Amino acid sequence: MLEFLRSDLIDLAAYTPHPGGKPSHPVDRLDTNESPFDLPKDFKEKLVQAYQEGIATNRYPDGSHGELKRAIAQYVNESAGLENVIDASRISVGNGSDELIRSLLIATCVGSDCSILVATPTFSMYGILSQTLGIPVSSVSRSETDFSINLGEAKYTVERNPLIRVVFAVHPNSPTANPLTQAEIEWLKSLPEQILVVIDEAYFEFSQTSVVRELEEHPNWVILRTFSKAFRLASLRVGYAIAHPDVTATLEKIRLPYNLPSFSQIAAQLALENRDSLLTVIPELLKERDRLFAAFSSHPNLQVWASSANFLYLRPRSPQLSLAKWVETLKSKGTLIRHTGGGLRVTVGTPEENDRTLERFQALK
Amino acid sequence: MLEFLRSDLIDLAAYTPHPGGKPSHPVDRLDTNESPFDLPKDFKEKLVQAYQEGIATNRYPDGSHGELKRAIAQYVNESAGLENVIDASRISVGNGSDELIRSLLIATCVGSDCSILVATPTFSMYGILSQTLGIPVSSVSRSETDFSINLGEAKYTVERNPLIRVVFAVHPNSPTANPLTQAEIEWLKSLPEQILVVIDEAYFEFSQTSVVRELEEHPNWVILRTFSKAFRLASLRVGYAIAHPDVTATLEKIRLPYNLPSFSQIAAQLALENRDSLLTVIPELLKERDRLFAAFSSHPNLQVWASSANFLYLRPRSPQLSLAKWVETLKSKGTLIRHTGGGLRVTVGTPEENDRTLERFQALK
Repeated sequence: MLEFLRSDLIDLAAYTPHPGGKPSHPVDRLDTNESPFDLPKDFKEKLVQAYQEGIATNRYPDGSHGELKRAIAQYVNESAGLENVIDASRISVGNGSDELIRSLLIATCVGSDCSILVATPTFSMYGILSQTLGIPVSSVSRSETDFSINLGEAKYTVERNPLIRVVFAVHPNSPTANPLTQAEIEWLKSLPEQILVVIDEAYFEFSQTSVVRELEEHPNWVILRTFSKAFRLASLRVGYAIAHPDVTATLEKIRLPYNLPSFSQIAAQLALENRDSLLTVIPELLKERDRLFAAFSSHPNLQVWASSANFLYLRPRSPQLSLAKWVETLKSKGTLIRHTGGGLRVTVGTPEENDRTLERFQALK
Repeated sequence: MLEFLRSDLIDLAAYTPHPGGKPSHPVDRLDTNESPFDLPKDFKEKLVQAYQEGIATNRYPDGSHGELKRAIAQYVNESAGLENVIDASRISVGNGSDELIRSLLIATCVGSDCSILVATPTFSMYGILSQTLGIPVSSVSRSETDFSINLGEAKYTVERNPLIRVVFAVHPNSPTANPLTQAEIEWLKSLPEQILVVIDEAYFEFSQTSVVRELEEHPNWVILRTFSKAFRLASLRVGYAIAHPDVTATLEKIRLPYNLPSFSQIAAQLALENRDSLLTVIPELLKERDRLFAAFSSHPNLQVWASSANFLYLRPRSPQLSLAKWVETLKSKGTLIRHTGGGLRVTVGTPEENDRTLERFQALK
């Protein structure tokens, strides 16, 4: 290791992204909670036309994201039944939510003794991005029956550790697919204002539950959303934060000035303009999720939990069962799923993919 | 200011990006050192075809950048006359060089007493990104005659301040357009191995001078390059680092796992495949630069310096002259330039733009 590099990074296990490249045989990618549907052909046509006619590729992108932020604010209001409560000053746009998570950590924790709190199992990036910044991560557990946060433990941990300055919660949680309960929301509300509460609503369009109405009373809350799931733009990396204007102003200072390629910006705008048609497949996906849930419910070796998102979480009924082997077998047959938190996370795919998922699970020994 | 936000961010002046939106009248954008030429129409055709046929927009991008890194390595070798010295393990790709600068700062300076060294005037992002991470910035001056780094001052500063862990140099420098001198390179070579030396070659394709051959002997050196200038991809945000494999491995751990949209990745690959044709305009731009230089040389109130990049740096011959007023006047006429470091930085544009630049400068009082 070269001397100028931080020694605490040696042991850091980075997030393992898709390896890229074309697989040699057809693969059902049910491991990253993407939408199984690509953009409709006519949408892509409109997008490339907007690119060819409107974008000078040699010029830096719009660094203010003005138009996009206004369109996002409008969508947030509309989908929460609010009238102009959220305006562009409450929106900040990132290169995926990942960049926003990093910016939030930088805004709060860098340069001082500070730590974050997560309830595991949960999305791994909060922990990974904290570690890259040298920020310690406190973990509390979740109920083994419904995966709600063990609130007694969480309260005790926050009380005992005054360094905790940020709490991350996912609503609904990944990989366990449960939305925040009323008791969890009350706990988050009870946290003192010097603690930043980040509520990641990456799966909002599937769950249709949001805490956005709480923002006005809680200037220490930030909601994260993404275009990577229901809006089908994972390849183009657009996420956004909804927050108090002082928080977004700080995020805007911290983010890279040209963090979002023009092509991604116009794609997100076009996605919002066409949201009614893009989101029509959601009821179909939820029906498919319910079908998968029913089928998994009768599986002899697996327990499945109700889901508020576009994926299901499964755990073995017997601890003897080797999930790693199962995941490998499924992979060899062409189904990719995620082995995480002591269980399996399976994304809802197309009806054909889901048929194959069930068939391949049945064949597992 | 909300209590959970870092108080030292209040006074941080962020980089001011393009405001975005369409200007109401035609504007010559000569303020950000972009290429004045958009991609050729047939290139754009190929790009959108590759997107429509090859990219599932609903899927996360290739997080390994494997193919792109191999193509970049090949280009680096070829343009330096090297035979396979640089392979993909020595390349890391960022969301513009900005992301790489941030990652380098995180890799070295976060979580410990540490500071960086720059020689001003220079590219402002080193300082700004350091400040967002709470990292102190030491500045040394440059010669008023040729803008080379005042090496006596630099050596003294490094000796006196053992916290300096990263030195940033631009080759050629922005805004002053001078390449590193042999004496500056010798000084960089003499720095101890626990200091990271970052050499930003954003304008390499214009200067055709590189320190890439020094990398093998100096594992503490990192070279930054970009597709935003000569390759005309500013809107798509692709930069890269060339470095020792241990450094790139650390950068890969720190970067956001899906930092680069698929569309940007295929655009950069296509740009490399078509580099011969894309870079043919460079001699024309250099000729235009020389024409501008000659014309400015006879300007009664301005001094102009020789340039190794695609821009010129000018300073007033008299301190009474109000550059701010000049910049405003030029803007009102439709020419945007940069007022920075006590001088004016003017990007070389198309021949028509350059005609207007000269005409509008002549009219200034």
